[in-house]
Formats: sequence, structure tokens, C-alpha cells
Amino acid sequence: MTEIGIGIIGGGYMGKAHAAAMVAVGTVFETTLRPRLEMVAATSDDSAARYRDAYGFARSTGDWRVLVADPKVEAVIIASVQSTHLDIAKAAFALGKPVMCEKPMGLTEAEAQQMTDLAKAAGVANMVAYNYIRTPASQMARKMIAAGDLGRIHYIRAEHVEDFQNDPATFAAWRCEGDANGTLGDLAPHIINAARALMGPIASVNAVIETVYDERGPYTVTNDDQLQAMVRFEGGAMGHLFASRVATGRKMGYAYEITGDKGAIRFDQEDQNSLWYFDNADPKDRAGFRRILTGPEHPDYLPFCQGPGHGTGYQDQIIIEAKDFLKAIETGEAIYPTFREGLEVQRTVAAIRASNKTQSWQNVSDF
Amino acid sequence: MTEIGIGIIGGGYMGKAHAAAMVAVGTVFETTLRPRLEMVAATSDDSAARYRDAYGFARSTGDWRVLVADPKVEAVIIASVQSTHLDIAKAAFALGKPVMCEKPMGLTEAEAQQMTDLAKAAGVANMVAYNYIRTPASQMARKMIAAGDLGRIHYIRAEHVEDFQNDPATFAAWRCEGDANGTLGDLAPHIINAARALMGPIASVNAVIETVYDERGPYTVTNDDQLQAMVRFEGGAMGHLFASRVATGRKMGYAYEITGDKGAIRFDQEDQNSLWYFDNADPKDRAGFRRILTGPEHPDYLPFCQGPGHGTGYQDQIIIEAKDFLKAIETGEAIYPTFREGLEVQRTVAAIRASNKTQSWQNVSDF
Amino acid sequence: MTEIGIGIIGGGYMGKAHAAAMVAVGTVFETTLRPRLEMVAATSDDSAARYRDAYGFARSTGDWRVLVADPKVEAVIIASVQSTHLDIAKAAFALGKPVMCEKPMGLTEAEAQQMTDLAKAAGVANMVAYNYIRTPASQMARKMIAAGDLGRIHYIRAEHVEDFQNDPATFAAWRCEGDANGTLGDLAPHIINAARALMGPIASVNAVIETVYDERGPYTVTNDDQLQAMVRFEGGAMGHLFASRVATGRKMGYAYEITGDKGAIRFDQEDQNSLWYFDNADPKDRAGFRRILTGPEHPDYLPFCQGPGHGTGYQDQIIIEAKDFLKAIETGEAIYPTFREGLEVQRTVAAIRASNKTQSWQNVSDF
Amino acid sequence: MTEIGIGIIGGGYMGKAHAAAMVAVGTVFETTLRPRLEMVAATSDDSAARYRDAYGFARSTGDWRVLVADPKVEAVIIASVQSTHLDIAKAAFALGKPVMCEKPMGLTEAEAQQMTDLAKAAGVANMVAYNYIRTPASQMARKMIAAGDLGRIHYIRAEHVEDFQNDPATFAAWRCEGDANGTLGDLAPHIINAARALMGPIASVNAVIETVYDERGPYTVTNDDQLQAMVRFEGGAMGHLFASRVATGRKMGYAYEITGDKGAIRFDQEDQNSLWYFDNADPKDRAGFRRILTGPEHPDYLPFCQGPGHGTGYQDQIIIEAKDFLKAIETGEAIYPTFREGLEVQRTVAAIRASNKTQSWQNVSDF
Repeated sequence: MTEIGIGIIGGGYMGKAHAAAMVAVGTVFETTLRPRLEMVAATSDDSAARYRDAYGFARSTGDWRVLVADPKVEAVIIASVQSTHLDIAKAAFALGKPVMCEKPMGLTEAEAQQMTDLAKAAGVANMVAYNYIRTPASQMARKMIAAGDLGRIHYIRAEHVEDFQNDPATFAAWRCEGDANGTLGDLAPHIINAARALMGPIASVNAVIETVYDERGPYTVTNDDQLQAMVRFEGGAMGHLFASRVATGRKMGYAYEITGDKGAIRFDQEDQNSLWYFDNADPKDRAGFRRILTGPEHPDYLPFCQGPGHGTGYQDQIIIEAKDFLKAIETGEAIYPTFREGLEVQRTVAAIRASNKTQSWQNVSDF
Repeated sequence: MTEIGIGIIGGGYMGKAHAAAMVAVGTVFETTLRPRLEMVAATSDDSAARYRDAYGFARSTGDWRVLVADPKVEAVIIASVQSTHLDIAKAAFALGKPVMCEKPMGLTEAEAQQMTDLAKAAGVANMVAYNYIRTPASQMARKMIAAGDLGRIHYIRAEHVEDFQNDPATFAAWRCEGDANGTLGDLAPHIINAARALMGPIASVNAVIETVYDERGPYTVTNDDQLQAMVRFEGGAMGHLFASRVATGRKMGYAYEITGDKGAIRFDQEDQNSLWYFDNADPKDRAGFRRILTGPEHPDYLPFCQGPGHGTGYQDQIIIEAKDFLKAIETGEAIYPTFREGLEVQRTVAAIRASNKTQSWQNVSDF
Repeated sequence: MTEIGIGIIGGGYMGKAHAAAMVAVGTVFETTLRPRLEMVAATSDDSAARYRDAYGFARSTGDWRVLVADPKVEAVIIASVQSTHLDIAKAAFALGKPVMCEKPMGLTEAEAQQMTDLAKAAGVANMVAYNYIRTPASQMARKMIAAGDLGRIHYIRAEHVEDFQNDPATFAAWRCEGDANGTLGDLAPHIINAARALMGPIASVNAVIETVYDERGPYTVTNDDQLQAMVRFEGGAMGHLFASRVATGRKMGYAYEITGDKGAIRFDQEDQNSLWYFDNADPKDRAGFRRILTGPEHPDYLPFCQGPGHGTGYQDQIIIEAKDFLKAIETGEAIYPTFREGLEVQRTVAAIRASNKTQSWQNVSDF
Repeated sequence: MTEIGIGIIGGGYMGKAHAAAMVAVGTVFETTLRPRLEMVAATSDDSAARYRDAYGFARSTGDWRVLVADPKVEAVIIASVQSTHLDIAKAAFALGKPVMCEKPMGLTEAEAQQMTDLAKAAGVANMVAYNYIRTPASQMARKMIAAGDLGRIHYIRAEHVEDFQNDPATFAAWRCEGDANGTLGDLAPHIINAARALMGPIASVNAVIETVYDERGPYTVTNDDQLQAMVRFEGGAMGHLFASRVATGRKMGYAYEITGDKGAIRFDQEDQNSLWYFDNADPKDRAGFRRILTGPEHPDYLPFCQGPGHGTGYQDQIIIEAKDFLKAIETGEAIYPTFREGLEVQRTVAAIRASNKTQSWQNVSDF
């Protein structure tokens, strides 16, 4: 059991989640490395100090460079806006410090490429924080597909849909501008990561991106509300991706359905402790989609609870992520999803954007 | 209460369904016109005679021309293969007899066009048998959309998925060839009809059609297993259609989800007595998708049962269809979906086929 | 194919259902006996004539004795109030005519006993109309239990809950009085029949019956709103029954859950085309309740539709019942549920009533 | 922000859960008191040392008396077997230390009574660890009932069902003996607590308790596998409780349904982030049970995540509990559920046991 000093840049939504995960992970997973909340950075000294006191960090700073440079900060978590990702990663890698970066990684695929190159050159642990793929259910889905339970796969439908912008009369200025804050920049990466994790690389895309509400109150909206893409995987299967921030009634609709000749799987993050599975080998009169409740038999469940069906939640995904990051640091193994995956997602985002512009199929390999 | 002699061409799956509907409809809906199973036609005298005895027709014939020409046959139902639709309709309209035709109407959009023109010229009742849109739940969905319950609509996802061909080791020769027997020809028309009924005309499509299994046992497969299309409606909204005969685990997956700024709707034919509805006006802490069970308050339910939640089934949709056909005959009103709708579906099918060939967006109006 | 003249007494809710079933059954099930709607009886000549015209009977009468005595009426369906059941059955059996009687059979267990004795003496087809147990799903449940799929059964929970009386401000005078119109008299028999059909005879009961709303508008309520009973089956298993007419939100809540050491089953009539099944032999990490959609593999489904998942509805249960009644007439076989079952249900009702009075366990064999 | 030293007695299932909750609670809830894992006690020095290292305690001991007496242990959590509860609580209260005790509290209602008296005399924070009632969904259910959303309540059905003992061929010696390890002792208290929390005190019970499998491998089973109880609440409503450890297929079946004249609620811990609600005021043709996904609007959700539908899990309930215990310590307020509630649950358990013996209704007030 060795202590490790954690520095987190950003104290908002995800900064808090990472902080809470880092304090819990040692007890939950009984990790070898035990995180210590060493320092939090924010955009001002004051707000950083507030985060420090709220979450229990030892120190705080209004300048992320101070945090990265501090010798007691031994690992860095980037939970600040996308425009800062590249510079922070560069600074951390220069000092040989491991980095976990919030998704999507960097502002563009070019930045993601640089970050990936830097990570490779530094040779230290690097991870991009696609948390949803880490639920016991989604990990089990990956395992079943890898084990051939679905046989030859025909199709995947995957979506990430929420409704926080469904009402044009409610709005925030920052939501209305910047590709990174649009649906393709913000929500779609999660489901692109899911599609890749489940099905392998995406070869080509044919997409439509749109702004449903051009005006929201006094603001002109310059980023997108929803998008869809027909996709072709390198493995040959066809798929469809959809993302929306105007999907009324959907709160955390990270969902997928996959069919193969031997079986099928369905998952919806809104019921994250269930994985639905159809086994084509079941007798015809007794076959049906079964709701597998997650339990100790499923990946990364047991440390949270010995009882099946008791369930894990959002924060637990971040704890699993923290465990993996610590393990990557400890062992030197590259643990999925590394910056490489973050880059591949960004390249797919770029292909989707180009496809929408050209109204044609685009190869991801061109981006 | 007046009797009307019904002639049905085809005694298989749908022929039987129409026969059973015609005997029941008078009692269920207490219609003015009361059908009498006058004659059934099949591809041979023998099989026709078997259908006659099995279903209770007065007479039978191995030649559909005899049936159409018989003076006691006052209305004709076409439940034979698509290649016969045009000729039968032509003969019936020539004698001024009302026609209900199974979907999809005719082999091609050209045939569908001819049939529509002939129907118009004849000026008699004509209807295409899109039965699924007639469930009390789907009728209610249309009513709610028309009433503005969903507000401005953002997106529809609609699919018709089954799995009768999911296993490449099970096959039938006839299923492997002929566009009409592929998924685009056979299943997709239902969901195209649904999308149109709910959302209005489709302006343009961008599609992928594919044969997943090129070989099934000794047969080379020349028609399609699954297809998807991004669509744009004339009203402006975006959508996605999917159809598959290899969707393992799905049995009668005629399903749609529609979101608008005021609400959302979900439906799946596998639970045909439920309509899920999210009302965005509900208080935030008490909002959620509600499962509306069909009951006497919903269209065409009460004649089947006074009790809510008691439910209707597949055969009941055909009875509702029979009721509408009789009403069209009685009143002279054009009752949805007429041949015109059958034609529009076929044009959309043609546009999807062209889009797949050209890998580009196609306007439905060009077909 | 032989015609048989059907006489139905009562033209309301169930009278119409039986009429519609009798016109459809020949085509759907391709029965040997083909029913002809010969005569309907009601409480007045006028209302009977209205039913005749509405449903398509040949003749009508205001006096059920005329119907029973008519030589062209070859089988009698009793769909009139419970107080008339005994006299009608007596008259029909005296003439050697088969009888199907609506549930519950007779006003009391004493009347049910007389009816059962008369049926036995007459030696003709007799059946009590417990329709819900006839869905393909519930038939499949019975079949699975009989096949040992659940192993040793531990427990059943069964309920029949609706909400047509949940609001004390809505009421009808006739609903407020008469045991037969209370929940124990009206709804509970269905679920007692279900429990017996699935689990075998009930040995003893311990029950609470209660009137939740003593006043409804101007009326004093003298019958019951809800009841529960702990039960012990002759086979040894324990169970619980619940019935309510004030179960807000429940429309057709005829539902049961059964657990055994090898498996478990769940069913809810509100989703009547699904049977949920847990197979304890499934691998622990892939086990879960599966939703078996009814299809051609399940009892009495195929005649309605060749496609799985297309679903049957309320009226189809009555058609299945009609088919069984015709078969009982044709073959002389006793087809479940006969009057004997109707009697056993009534004895269980009597035991529940006595248990509530004495606040103690009662043996059904004492009633 | 003040540190507080936590001592936990027991390092198994619940001991770990409390440890993990105590390390996380400060960051998640930003509490004033910040727990420090000071000492863990187990049945031997060795096992205690293992727990210390695994969970991150500062110190450990094989003797709980050492832990209780240690001045740096400022609050005690009892997660050891029921037979130790009374002695530990006595020792802690004697030193004026706050105590949180695992459920059920003490071996018998007599012990629970003593513990409650001691807590009262000590005048310090005391809490019994009924965690399931603390989910955001169940807290919301309580809030809605208190707000009158259901109107006059007619009925509650509540159950706690699992299947860890469903197979008589799998067994552990300790599970087979001791009332505390039977279903009434182990699982039923949770659902009794739920019923009381939602509906108020239980006035009387009529129950059946049974051992389904008398033998499990080499062991004779002397405690119970399942039980049911009809109950009457002091408020007048009727209810039913069921608990089972042989409920095949159920993993965490802590579930309830409550109906009133204005609405109804349904909950199942296996889908702990959903609360189903039927609002009788909805228009008849648009009414249905809605699935309310928990979100920031619901009690104790926001600290875990700003996004609705992202969900909380099992461990989060323990964190909520930890927050409440710290608040009780800090403010001196009695926070539900105190030892008083633990006692009331135990009295209800005693009444159920007596009812089973006498086969009659028993008043809880007599125990």
C-alpha cells in the first residue's frame, strides 16, 4: 500500500466526480496505490480554494501549471474545458507524470493526435475518461461479444440521447456556441467509444448533423442539437449512431442494441444494472430476451457489493475508472481506453463532420 | 343491415386473416353492411376448395378471374402474390367493384401508379392493407401528434424488425430471391407507412440496403436482409428507418419513437396495447414516460371490449380494417390508407433503392 | 362441417363477446361444428331484438325459456346475471342441451353444486367461462409447470386488480350491493381459477375482505372493494391471493408469480402476450427473467397468426373458449374448465368468506 | 470541517460498505464532519489487521472493547453479528459515543428495547442501518405520500425476496440455524421498515412462516425460508408483506406497490433509479404508470451527479446513511431511523412470530 498524490484540474461536475472516486477507490478496490487528494486547480484561487475545502484536497491553486509542476502531485486528472487539454497534457508528460483526461480529448482530432504522440513519447500511463463503457453491464456485453455469444454480428444501433436542451425557451449562452459544446462534440463521443468498444473500429460514416433551434432566447445557436450517422465497421457490420440533446423524456439514454446470428444484446444506461440478452439456442417456445441483473459474476461488480442485483451507480463508474488508472500507473500496462482510443473517437467525429458537409460517405482513415 | 358478398383471392396467411375478419366484423362493429364469405380463389381448384371448407366460404375457384366476374362477389380482397395485384385490380375496377389490396401494392411503383389511376377512374372504394397502423395505440399516437401533444417534432426512429431469417442455416428458396420477398419489399413498407402516417410525407432518403448472407444452404440470395435509411420529412423533421429479417430475438418489432419539444411517444408492436408517452409539462420531479394501456377511450377499442387493458390482438387489426373497408363501400368516402397511400409507399421504396445504388440522397418526388 | 344453432342469454358485455366468438371460431379454428347465431334472449323483447340486429342473430326473445326450448337452439350460453344461472342450466340440461355458463357459476356454492350435479346427470357438455386462463401465455405456464420446469414450487402470488371503483365519487347503484357484484364475487373467481389451474386445489385459506368506501354518493356500500387471502395448496405450497376494484392504475391486473427451485414464472394480463421465465439452470452470469413472446409454438396461438409476437387479444380468448366448447359438444369429452371447476371456485369463495368472518384459517373441503 | 475518528466493528460485507461510505461521504456531501478511518475490530487480531490494510484504517484490534474504549474513536459503527449488538451499544453509550447499528437491531425485541433505552439515556446520536429506504426513489415515495399525492391509501404490498437459498443442494451451515439468519430475522426487517416508513405503524399481523427445505445437505434447517403476513396499519389501511430467500430469479427484490384513491406508486430495488407513479388526475386516455427516473430534483441525488437518470447504486445508499449519521452527531438531531425505529421493527417481527405460532391475528402493541 503506497500513497500517491493526485492533482485534479477542474472542480466542477467531473472534477468532483474524480475527487470522490479517488477517495473511495482504495477502500472499494483495495488497491495497492492509495490516492491522496493533493491539489485541485481551478480558474481562480478563490474557486480552487472552495473546491479544496468542499472535496477535501490538501491544497489548491488558481493556476494549473503550479499543480502540474508540484512534486507532490504524482498523477494528473484533466477535468477542465477542452481547450486546455493539450497544454496540460504536454506539461504533465514533460515531467513524466501519468494523465487521465476527460472526454472528448482535445478540441480537434489534430490536438488529440498531438496528445497521443506526446503520451507515447513520455511512456507513462494515459487514459481518456469514457466512463459509461465501464459499467459491469457494458463490460459484460463486451465480454460476451468477444466470447462469440452473438455469433456473426449483423447490426448495432447505438445512441446517446438526453433532453437538457429540448425546450428552446430554456438556454444557456455557452451551450449555444462552440463545436465542443454541441451534441457531436459533447455527447456523441461517448457512443462512438461504445460502438468501437463493442464492435471494433468504424471504417466509414454517412451523417446528418443539425441545429433544430436556431435561436434560443437572445442567442443564435451555432452548434448542433442532434445528429445521426449510418456507419460501416471494419469488421463488415453495418450500424447506426444517433445523438441528441433535444430528445424529450430521455435523461441518460446511452443505449445500444446488437444482433448477430447466435444472439442479441440490448442495453440502456437508464437501467444500467440490466443487460438484456437473447440466446438463439434456447428452445423456440422458451426463448426470449432475458434481463440479466448485474452481480458478483460480472466485471468490477463484486468490490461494490457481494449481493447480486444490488446495483452500481454513476459514481461507481468513476471509481472503476480510478482503479484502472491506478493500475496503469502501478503496472505500466496500457489500460483501455488510452489516449489512442481518445484519438480514434476524435477522428470519427471529424469524419462525421465532413460527411455532413459533403453529404456523402467518408472514410475515417482520411481523418 | 345489408349483406355483401366478399371474394378473397389467396387463402394463405393473409387470406385466412381477411376471411376471419370478414365473418367477425359485423358482430364486433355492428356494421351496416354484413359480409358473406361468397368465394375464395387460389392457384388451383383443389387448394381453393380446401380454403373454402376450412374458412367457411360458400364457393371456391382455381381462377381469380371467375371470382372477380361472379355477380355475387360484390367486393374483392387481393391476398395473392404481388405480381397478380395489378391484373386483379384492373379486372375488378372494370366491373366497378371495390378492392382491398394486400401490401405492398403491386410489384413496383409503376404498377402501384397504374393501380391508383385505375382506382381513381373507377371511383369505387379502394384500400391498401396496412394493418399495423390501425391498432388503437397507433391510432392514438396519430391523434396525439395531430393534436399537438408533442409540439414541434424533432426526430422519429422507426423500425420493422423480425428474425425469421436470422439463421443462415434455415432457409426457403422463395425467400432468397425477388425484391418483393426481400426486407425492403416485404417489411419496410409497413414502417414507411407508419412514418408517413405519423409524420407526413417523406421528402428525401439516404439508404444502405444489404444482403448479410449471400448463401443460404444451396441457394444464392439475391434479395436483401436488412436496410437502413436516414430520411427528411417534408415537414422538416429528420428521421431514421430500419428494417431487418435477421434481427435475432425480435419477433414483431414494428416500433417507433418520436420526440418533440412538448412531449415524446414510444411504441412497440410486441406490446401493442401500450403507448408510452412523456409529457414535458409534468413537474420535473414527477415526470416520466407513462405506459398508457389501451382502453375504451382509444380509437376502435370499445367494440372489442368494454374493459380497459383487456387488449386487442393481431386479428383485431384486420377486423378494424374490414370495418373501414365496409364503411368506404357503404359511404363512398375515401378511407385511409387508399391506393394513393400504397403508391406513395412504393415511391419511397423506389427512392431507397436508388439511394443505395447511388450512395447519395434521393428525392422521393423523383420516383 | 356441421352447423350448430347457438342460443345466447344476455346481450351485454359477455353476451356480445360470446356472439362475436361464435361467428369467428369456425374460420379461425376451422372447427368441425360451425356455429350459427340462432337466437339471443334478453330481459325484454325490445332489447333482445336490438341485440339480434346488432350482432347478427337470426331471432330473439324476451324470455330465456323460449330460447332454451327452441329446437333450433342446440347449445346454450348463459351470459345473464348470476341469479338466473341455476334455472337456465336446469332447463337446458333437462332437454339434453350443452351449456357454457359465465363465471362465477351461480350465486352460491350451493347453486354451483346443484348445477354441477345436474350437468353430471345430463351427461352433456358443460363449461364455465374462465377465459383468462386460456391465453396462449397462461396455457404455456400451465404446460411448463406440468413439465416440471419450475421444479418443486415454493410460492405463488396471484391477483386480479382493477380500478373501476377507485374513486368514491364515481359509482353505480348496482355495483354497491350484492355479494356477486363485490370483488370477491366478481373478480376473485378468475384468480382463484388461475391459482387452481396452475397449482392444483387450494386446501385452506385465511382471508380479510373489506369495504374501503362505505358510502359512494347517495349509496351505502354493502359489498366488498378488496380482499386478500393467504392460502395453502393441497400440494403443500403456500400462496397469496389479492383482488381489488380500487387498485388505482391497474386496468386488467390478472397477474401471477410462481417460484420453484428450478425456475420461476411471471405473468400479467396487461401484457398478455408475454410470459416471463427464469431458468435456474442458466449460467449465473447469463441468467435472468426472459420475456417469452407468444407465437405459433404456444398453445392455441397458430390459428390466429403464423407470425410470432403478433399477439392475441381479449376477444381471442373467447374464441379459444368457443372452440373448446364446440369440441366438448362434438367429442363428448369433458373439457376444462367444466362445471366441476366452477363449483370448486365457488367453494373456495365460500371458504374465504367464512375465514373473514371467523378471522381464522378455513378448510375449503368444509364448504 | 472537523475530523472525526470512526471505529467499525466487523469487516465483512457491511463493515466494508460502511468503511467505503465513510471515506467517500465528505467529498460527496461536502459534510462539516470529515470521517477518518481510525480503527477496525474483528474476531481476531489477524483478520482485523487484514481489514485495516484492505480498507485503509489507521489501526485494528481483535477486541471490540479496545475499539470502543479508544479515545480517538469518536463514533462507533456496529457491523458484527446480532448477538454482539447489545453489549457493544451499551459500552459505547456508557462513554457517550454515537452509535450506528446494523439491522436488525439486537437478537430480540427485548434486546432492541434495552438498546433503545440506553440510547435515550445517553442522549447521543443513534441510528439503525436500514439503507434501502434511503434511495432517492424511496425517499421520493415517502415525500409523495406525505404530500397526499396518493390520496387515501387503500393497500400496500411489500416484499423482500432473494434467491440465495433457492437450491436445496447449495447450503452453508450457519444459514440453516438461528432465527437471526432466517428470512424473518434477516430479510423481513428491511421490508417491515419500508412498510412503516411509507405507511406508518403496523397495528396487527396475521402470518405464516415456513421452512421449505427441512434438510440442506447434511444439515437440518431450523430457521425459516419464507414468510407472509397480512397486516393492518394504525392508519386503517390493509397490507401484505412477503419475504423469501428461495424466490428463484429474484436478486434484490425489495419492492412495494401502494394504491390510493388519487394515485399509485410502484418500486423495485432491482431498478432502484425508477419510481413508477400513476396520477389518477391525468386524462383517462393519456393516463398510465410513469417511470420517474431519479435525478437532481429527488432527495439526496444531486451530490452524486448533476445529471438526471445517471443513477445511484447500492454503495451510494450507505454514503447517504453516513451523511445522516454525521449530521446527527453534528447537530444532535434525532435522524430517522433511530434505535426507536429499530425497536419497532423488532416488535413487529416478534408479533409475526407469535402469529405464526397461534395461527391468529396479533397486535404489535402486545410485543
